[in-house]
Amino acid sequence: MTQTSSILDANAFTGTAADGSLVRRREQALGPAYRLFYREPVELVRGSGVHLFDAEGREYLDAYNNVACVGHAHPRVVEAVSRQVGRLTTHTRYLDAALVTYAERLLATFPAVLDRVMLTCTGSEANDLALRLAFAATGGTGVIVTEEAYHGNTALVTGTSPSLGAGAPLGEHVWTVPAPDPVRRPGTPAEVAVRFTAAVDAALEEMAAAGVRPAALLVDTILSSDGVHADPAGPGGLLAGAVAAVRRAGGVLVADEVQPGFARTGEHVWGFERHGLVPEIATLGKPMGGGLPIAGVVAQEAVLTPFAGTTPYFNTFGGSHVSIAAATAVLDVIEGEGLQQRALEVGAVFAEALREVAARHPVVADVRGAGLYLGVELVDLPGGAGVAGPAADDPGALASDVVNGMRERGVLTSVCGRFGTTLKVRPPLVFSTADVERYCTELDAVLDDLGR
Amino acid sequence: MTQTSSILDANAFTGTAADGSLVRRREQALGPAYRLFYREPVELVRGSGVHLFDAEGREYLDAYNNVACVGHAHPRVVEAVSRQVGRLTTHTRYLDAALVTYAERLLATFPAVLDRVMLTCTGSEANDLALRLAFAATGGTGVIVTEEAYHGNTALVTGTSPSLGAGAPLGEHVWTVPAPDPVRRPGTPAEVAVRFTAAVDAALEEMAAAGVRPAALLVDTILSSDGVHADPAGPGGLLAGAVAAVRRAGGVLVADEVQPGFARTGEHVWGFERHGLVPEIATLGKPMGGGLPIAGVVAQEAVLTPFAGTTPYFNTFGGSHVSIAAATAVLDVIEGEGLQQRALEVGAVFAEALREVAARHPVVADVRGAGLYLGVELVDLPGGAGVAGPAADDPGALASDVVNGMRERGVLTSVCGRFGTTLKVRPPLVFSTADVERYCTELDAVLDDLGR
Repeated sequence: MTQTSSILDANAFTGTAADGSLVRRREQALGPAYRLFYREPVELVRGSGVHLFDAEGREYLDAYNNVACVGHAHPRVVEAVSRQVGRLTTHTRYLDAALVTYAERLLATFPAVLDRVMLTCTGSEANDLALRLAFAATGGTGVIVTEEAYHGNTALVTGTSPSLGAGAPLGEHVWTVPAPDPVRRPGTPAEVAVRFTAAVDAALEEMAAAGVRPAALLVDTILSSDGVHADPAGPGGLLAGAVAAVRRAGGVLVADEVQPGFARTGEHVWGFERHGLVPEIATLGKPMGGGLPIAGVVAQEAVLTPFAGTTPYFNTFGGSHVSIAAATAVLDVIEGEGLQQRALEVGAVFAEALREVAARHPVVADVRGAGLYLGVELVDLPGGAGVAGPAADDPGALASDVVNGMRERGVLTSVCGRFGTTLKVRPPLVFSTADVERYCTELDAVLDDLGR
Repeated sequence: MTQTSSILDANAFTGTAADGSLVRRREQALGPAYRLFYREPVELVRGSGVHLFDAEGREYLDAYNNVACVGHAHPRVVEAVSRQVGRLTTHTRYLDAALVTYAERLLATFPAVLDRVMLTCTGSEANDLALRLAFAATGGTGVIVTEEAYHGNTALVTGTSPSLGAGAPLGEHVWTVPAPDPVRRPGTPAEVAVRFTAAVDAALEEMAAAGVRPAALLVDTILSSDGVHADPAGPGGLLAGAVAAVRRAGGVLVADEVQPGFARTGEHVWGFERHGLVPEIATLGKPMGGGLPIAGVVAQEAVLTPFAGTTPYFNTFGGSHVSIAAATAVLDVIEGEGLQQRALEVGAVFAEALREVAARHPVVADVRGAGLYLGVELVDLPGGAGVAGPAADDPGALASDVVNGMRERGVLTSVCGRFGTTLKVRPPLVFSTADVERYCTELDAVLDDLGR
């Protein structure tokens, strides 16, 4: 398997597979762009709630998959999809009351000024479309993203995804800004906010010097592949000053809600709400259909119209009946089962429990996030301070050991962050306090096993 | 609703909807980029085989929707999706034997040299990825497409889709060539092939003069939005000389199989086979999952590797369990019910029956296509010859009248072609000779009603 420097490879299988094995057949059929998780890949065949089961019947606790946000194989999603696929699944050139009702219901979860939605199949398509809305609305082409951002896999948004590594160069008019780093570059919330704003200001100045007009700041409202950075939130927080600067320069905020959205933060339905901001454009994805492919762009009418009024848009499967049925069931479950409140409560318990693990293991240098979206920073240094030290050549080695140790113990999680040092904890929203206890018990044990 | 010059608007609803109506609510929620078919839009709620039913229970014959290639709500697809969604649907970073088996089975339908497949959710994503494979493999950036091509909705492939109209400008390195026009520019098969090759040669010369290296000829193997042009096929046919010229100049053939593929031509599984060609890259879409969102890129290893060996690719829903279950069921049905042979036989009956309609109505100037993918050219001129005449300002008016008349009579079809003058006939592959008779009876009657 070809090696790249992409942070997305931090938890990738890099072994050599035997001829005729499923791993080898997969490599032969799909080619070298595909990755598998874990040193020993997992073959999953069944899911239920927060649990996944492999081909040998072994059970795993899923602390990673946000697509199944209401839990794997939720009966309401299963029933909605099964019923709809047996009735009809076709496209948006026919009228569909369920589509319109869903669109209205989705928009009602946003501030009133965000009053239009366009439906795609993937978050990549949503970000690709969102940037074109921003280009048309602003007349600009410059885009600012964070240093390890991932915004998708189309040609356009691959160019806004530095986390893909050197093989996928940035777009010509894309500038990057560093995400916060509470461990290697600590600071008060105000200092962190000022630094981020200053970095965005500097990018805007470089853009101006290059004769490029700004179009958008495109950011996850919890910085995700950068290492799960949710804070500082609020009016004086991470994004407020940066967004104001971008707007002064003529650009807009595209809030990538693919990971933080749909109630995961617990405090709000949408991540941008934590920051006290209203974006011009928000993009939605992964959890939207509870496993079925559906995603979308929500935008302010005035921002949408310069593009949408001149360019017909048709996405054969975007907004198809079966995806809408699944997405409607997901909203039903989030509301009916109180999953936003659950994310808030269980998330708080989870963060506290992780901090208790940190108290016993100095390599756990930080626990952060919001609701059921948490990052656990593992810094592999004797004493835990600074960045220099014996493991500096491979700073992600400890986190890699930990996620693989967790996998051996039946808990699925992964890594992210600039150095691959952050455990990415992003479970289905039906995660319970018992699941939290299991996660932390196993994390504790893995760190003990590793002598850290 | 904003009007554009896009040919894709030829069958679009352009009326004014009453406040509070479903059409108006839809416009308000989705914005102006969306289109509805027909002067009186159809609200569909159920499908079965080749039949669709609207909210009032009215039945329609579906002669347009190729996504439901094995028929609407085919029990085998319904069962496969229902079973899988109740078990598990997650992504390609876990091992999945069904995914690998499907990939191998799909590749076995291609010439052996096409030995890798990457899975996306939409044909747009597939073409977007295919062009990047071509760019990386050739070192070129120039792309040639037909004059009314549609290859999708991402930023990159919108730029290769002139049919979207003036609001969606072509990419900087995109050249167009005219599709054949058997009515306005008749010729022997050899003449048509020579003209197309000459147009591609001219585009390559312009590219060279502009200092642009060619990457790809990106074409539907039955030119689709250009007006359903399938012929001339074979070694001396439409594409052979053009592809040879592109290859001599260092480019590759990207065969867009989104519409012709999956046995629709009857003669072969893939449209490129009719032309006696083996593309470097083929893209698949719409019918692949029988209604579930799945699409993909099939490529020769040597062409895939320059991109795939350096760029990680992850598509959250691409190759997910439920899409693979649907796609596997589609292959099962195509093979188990002999749908390729059926497309051949029923398609031949259909073409012959349409020619009988043409014999009674001189406005039917041409019937063309392959298998169950047919184009019926309607030229609104007294005598039927030439392009000048009373309706030249709105050459698509007759075709529009016909598709709306057909819709009133319970037959769903649409239009395409440079002037919006071609009926696009692309039914589910389970279409029967009785369905052919119904289609032609209603077409005959509509033309009689219109006094043509």
